[in-house]
Amino acid sequence: MNIRFYHAKILTMQQDFSILEDGELWVKGDTITYVGAPRKLQEKSQEKWDREIDAGGNLIMPGFKNAHTHSAMTFLRSYADDLPLQQWLEKQVFPMEAKLSGEDVYHLSKLAILEYLTSGITANFDMYFFPQQIAQASIDCGFRTVLCSSLNNFVSSLEEMEENYEKFNHSSDLIRYQLGFHAEYTTSLPLLEGVAKLSQKLKAPVFMHNSETEDEVSQCKERYGVTPTVLFENLGMFAYGGGGFHCVYMTQEDLDIFARRGLFVVTNPGSNCKLASGIAPLEQMLSSGISIAIGTDGPASNNCLDMFREMFLATALQKLRTKNAAAMDALEVLRMAAVNGARAMGLADCDCLAPGKLADLILVDLQQPNMQPLNNIVKNLVYSGSKQNIRLTMVGGKILYENGEFFIGESPESVYAQANRIIRSFCKKTGF
Amino acid sequence: MNIRFYHAKILTMQQDFSILEDGELWVKGDTITYVGAPRKLQEKSQEKWDREIDAGGNLIMPGFKNAHTHSAMTFLRSYADDLPLQQWLEKQVFPMEAKLSGEDVYHLSKLAILEYLTSGITANFDMYFFPQQIAQASIDCGFRTVLCSSLNNFVSSLEEMEENYEKFNHSSDLIRYQLGFHAEYTTSLPLLEGVAKLSQKLKAPVFMHNSETEDEVSQCKERYGVTPTVLFENLGMFAYGGGGFHCVYMTQEDLDIFARRGLFVVTNPGSNCKLASGIAPLEQMLSSGISIAIGTDGPASNNCLDMFREMFLATALQKLRTKNAAAMDALEVLRMAAVNGARAMGLADCDCLAPGKLADLILVDLQQPNMQPLNNIVKNLVYSGSKQNIRLTMVGGKILYENGEFFIGESPESVYAQANRIIRSFCKKTGF
Repeated sequence: MNIRFYHAKILTMQQDFSILEDGELWVKGDTITYVGAPRKLQEKSQEKWDREIDAGGNLIMPGFKNAHTHSAMTFLRSYADDLPLQQWLEKQVFPMEAKLSGEDVYHLSKLAILEYLTSGITANFDMYFFPQQIAQASIDCGFRTVLCSSLNNFVSSLEEMEENYEKFNHSSDLIRYQLGFHAEYTTSLPLLEGVAKLSQKLKAPVFMHNSETEDEVSQCKERYGVTPTVLFENLGMFAYGGGGFHCVYMTQEDLDIFARRGLFVVTNPGSNCKLASGIAPLEQMLSSGISIAIGTDGPASNNCLDMFREMFLATALQKLRTKNAAAMDALEVLRMAAVNGARAMGLADCDCLAPGKLADLILVDLQQPNMQPLNNIVKNLVYSGSKQNIRLTMVGGKILYENGEFFIGESPESVYAQANRIIRSFCKKTGF
Repeated sequence: MNIRFYHAKILTMQQDFSILEDGELWVKGDTITYVGAPRKLQEKSQEKWDREIDAGGNLIMPGFKNAHTHSAMTFLRSYADDLPLQQWLEKQVFPMEAKLSGEDVYHLSKLAILEYLTSGITANFDMYFFPQQIAQASIDCGFRTVLCSSLNNFVSSLEEMEENYEKFNHSSDLIRYQLGFHAEYTTSLPLLEGVAKLSQKLKAPVFMHNSETEDEVSQCKERYGVTPTVLFENLGMFAYGGGGFHCVYMTQEDLDIFARRGLFVVTNPGSNCKLASGIAPLEQMLSSGISIAIGTDGPASNNCLDMFREMFLATALQKLRTKNAAAMDALEVLRMAAVNGARAMGLADCDCLAPGKLADLILVDLQQPNMQPLNNIVKNLVYSGSKQNIRLTMVGGKILYENGEFFIGESPESVYAQANRIIRSFCKKTGF
């Protein structure tokens, strides 16, 4: 499909936050071929368009990247909230997850993808079981997914991770795979050593849950005498980069390692609130020179998959933490959600709008009361933006969501029915 | 208009959170006349309906009440964010507010009303200048507003407040008026004494900003040797009830006064984050027996008017504050947003869905990915709900918002144009 957008405000995010007024953007196949002022009629007439879309003065910008999630946990959304963390995990989440089949994960991942699209999210970094089925769900929907290994003492193996790395990095334009493991507290030292070696062999970055809770850090110190970050660094885990999910309890030494190694912090403020984990020191990370991306975490611990909520929290909680209303400028947060996420996930082609970049973009409705007046569009996005403002979500040149309708090759009703069937059948089996 | 909703899940919130399946709700004029199981064909045929609405299995529930706001501050949305609080107030907000005319406030209030409708808010408790124009904007839109006096050393007078109390409590079914003053730090002791006397004369509750920041409380203690709450209590301000906005820094003595007097706390978690004020001790308030309602505060300090965001924050921040993921059950929060708000504002007829109650209600779209699966609808509302889920907002039996369209007697584009004109003309004058 060749698609031409016109009459658009365009926030390319190539360098700064300047907005092109009355701009035009061309998409051919999966790629952006032009971004700029309206082209002359002569030039335009040489092109054949499958669709020409009048953006009506609304905003085109790069899609958001959900840089940490467990998509298929949709089945546990609102299933067991308001419980103490350990009880939630051990009595509710783990026993239910043990019942999941690959086919379940396929359907449940699709439910998450529907929600990503409503929130202007064009790619996710997904750590969950059954990577083959996660990948298939994304491919079938036309969605972009970077799989992250969830290796630990109970799940997967180094051999499988190496196989998956080769397989998924060459199977589909929409799928990538990154090395990873669940967390220090679920992964033995020999396995961690194996991950570090594999990373060096493949020259590949490594990602994991890191320092999400105080307990996690203190237990790691008991076991190894150092924080998780120092342990991983000492094992040679970060020779080729990577990053950590959550990173709520970080020492300055940890942050220095992140900065020196060019590691990404993926912050998950919604989940860190809901599970009472704490507020990550994002301001301190920025001043240490660390790049931050944003993730929703899984839908059982959030419970929604909404980049607008996460963006607001990313700035608002820093203001609370530092007792300074000037902390964490909204511009920095928008950069995290749209640009840094892509870079963290290894999607360098999806980070901004420019010729040659992949056409992963959104059309944001500014003609809604929460976006008016147009004093400052970027601040509006972060402080007042809502799913309600997402008019269109395009991934790899294909429109997957437009004016409330989904184009993912299956009706949303059918996806909802599958999700309800799965959780009901589990409840029946367990007598919950 | 006589309107019949059918095929609806109905959360009446009369007593508990049970949901009526396949329910029916009738509206005649501004009042609910029936809520319950589908009526027999014979009974139905005796009724004449202007409209019969198939809810399609979606949820009807009471509208949300925005129990503290300054609606017309829409003009300053995203105008001056990420600044230290005092600089924001003194260099940006106050000078701009000084330029506002009554006509400006009329247009700017309408912009806020549009946004309330998108968020399922059916009434607001509005403290701002030019009450006549605020009331007119609400009446013209068909929206319900309880005005709250913003009396202080610079604005209004006791005489005007008394006049307004009589006038606005008898002018329109959509408008009510409550006694109030801005805050201790902007109101002299003689004026505070005057408010207390007037409250006793009119047997009316009193509302004010109370203990929003640490500085506010410590400065009050320097001036009077007691907290704002104790000062007001000592002045006899609370003989007929009332409440406080924000209430972030409260002693147990303050909370005991609130409990004994049946005062409402109106919490504003979004604003308290963005302005770095802190997290109000809502859990402690609940265990002290205090009723809590929720407000967005004004759009310059939030910056959106979204009850879904506020509900999430009301529970999530308590979990953070108490380091307990089980803190502040979502059910309690939904009650604050829908039921307690009405009671705090003196709108006893708008607190739940039952025959004889005013038809202030919303239709929530459950057929969206963020609401699936239907493990627990109430928790879904609080943890994953979004403006995107609001299909219809009805105030006093009139549909003001449906499927993204507004029915307020003026096009949204015209309202947006006014708001942009106003802020642009101010910027021109001030050279910003």
